Amino acid sequence: MRGRFLSLEGGEGAGKSTQVRALAAALQARGLATRITREPGGSEGAEAIRALLMHGDAGRWSARAEALLFAAARADHVEKVIRPAVEAGEWVICDRYLDSSRAYQGAAGGVADADVLALHAFGSTGLLPDRTFVLTLPVAQGTERAATRDGAAADRFAARDGAFHEAVAAAFLRIAEQEPERVRRIDASRDQEAVTAAILDDLAAWLP
Amino acid sequence: MRGRFLSLEGGEGAGKSTQVRALAAALQARGLATRITREPGGSEGAEAIRALLMHGDAGRWSARAEALLFAAARADHVEKVIRPAVEAGEWVICDRYLDSSRAYQGAAGGVADADVLALHAFGSTGLLPDRTFVLTLPVAQGTERAATRDGAAADRFAARDGAFHEAVAAAFLRIAEQEPERVRRIDASRDQEAVTAAILDDLAAWLP
Repeated sequence: MRGRFLSLEGGEGAGKSTQVRALAAALQARGLATRITREPGGSEGAEAIRALLMHGDAGRWSARAEALLFAAARADHVEKVIRPAVEAGEWVICDRYLDSSRAYQGAAGGVADADVLALHAFGSTGLLPDRTFVLTLPVAQGTERAATRDGAAADRFAARDGAFHEAVAAAFLRIAEQEPERVRRIDASRDQEAVTAAILDDLAAWLP
Repeated sequence: MRGRFLSLEGGEGAGKSTQVRALAAALQARGLATRITREPGGSEGAEAIRALLMHGDAGRWSARAEALLFAAARADHVEKVIRPAVEAGEWVICDRYLDSSRAYQGAAGGVADADVLALHAFGSTGLLPDRTFVLTLPVAQGTERAATRDGAAADRFAARDGAFHEAVAAAFLRIAEQEPERVRRIDASRDQEAVTAAILDDLAAWLP
């Protein structure tokens, strides 16, 4: 039986990685085969591309070169990891996916949403998650959390200015409004257990 | 005054690198500022992508992931090197460019030509060379030359089979037929001096 493909999205410091792990543990406790993965990366080739994307100064790549690199990494990740795992019955939980490209290179980077989607259609046959959770948090709160967590190790994206992160947050909300069937907003300002419970509650109909 | 953008294309062992150098020397002798570059690569970011593209086994990337990586590298190369140099008055001579993507990932790799062109339009505003020279040589002769030159160091592309290289050669000829104003066929089975002379002859109207 086919598994499910879930993605978690949100700005810096929204708690995506924590929720990915908590969700995987909860699904495993229900006897489901789960797999945690992330973008950019998640496959050998895509992790090599990730190294190019995350390091160096913020202006290392133009938004368009960046969008092409993300699409290349995603094509490899989908083909080598996500699609085979879901077809083998696993529940794949991905820390960031297409909507991050739409928010970061698209809305905040100036690339048209239609172009981001066209690259995805070309590279990954347009594969969308069965369900996407956008973790929402005031930008200032997320930036503070991320700074506390990452110290001086902020990557090329975390290092952008406040207007950039506001544009990212607005884009995630817009995507959630435009695709209510696939994308659900989750208030991430609550404690971790409450956030995990909200995600599981949304998935209740699919759970054994 | 704007310079010129020239590309040299062809299969393995056609003598592109030799002709790039000979052409640059001939243009410099006429007092023109010239710049030699190559693809994949030619800028710092694109050379980093080149390392991902040229090494590993032939099946490391799908043709679509590969096409996205080439488009990303080209976007960086065009933005950081080719366009500024041509606008500054230089004659840029590029060892492989877009037509190699159309031949290798496109015709031989199964990606639609329209898709390769769409990626190029997105990443590099569709920039085309002022003139492209396709160096033609029977495939067996080129493969033999390349094997003699590269020994065991054949990259992911040179290592493909004969049918692949025949498809590449046919694609270059088709492009030359479709775009006779931009693309000129040059018989590369002659000695090097004759090949260089043929290229310079074609450029005569543009030379001082």
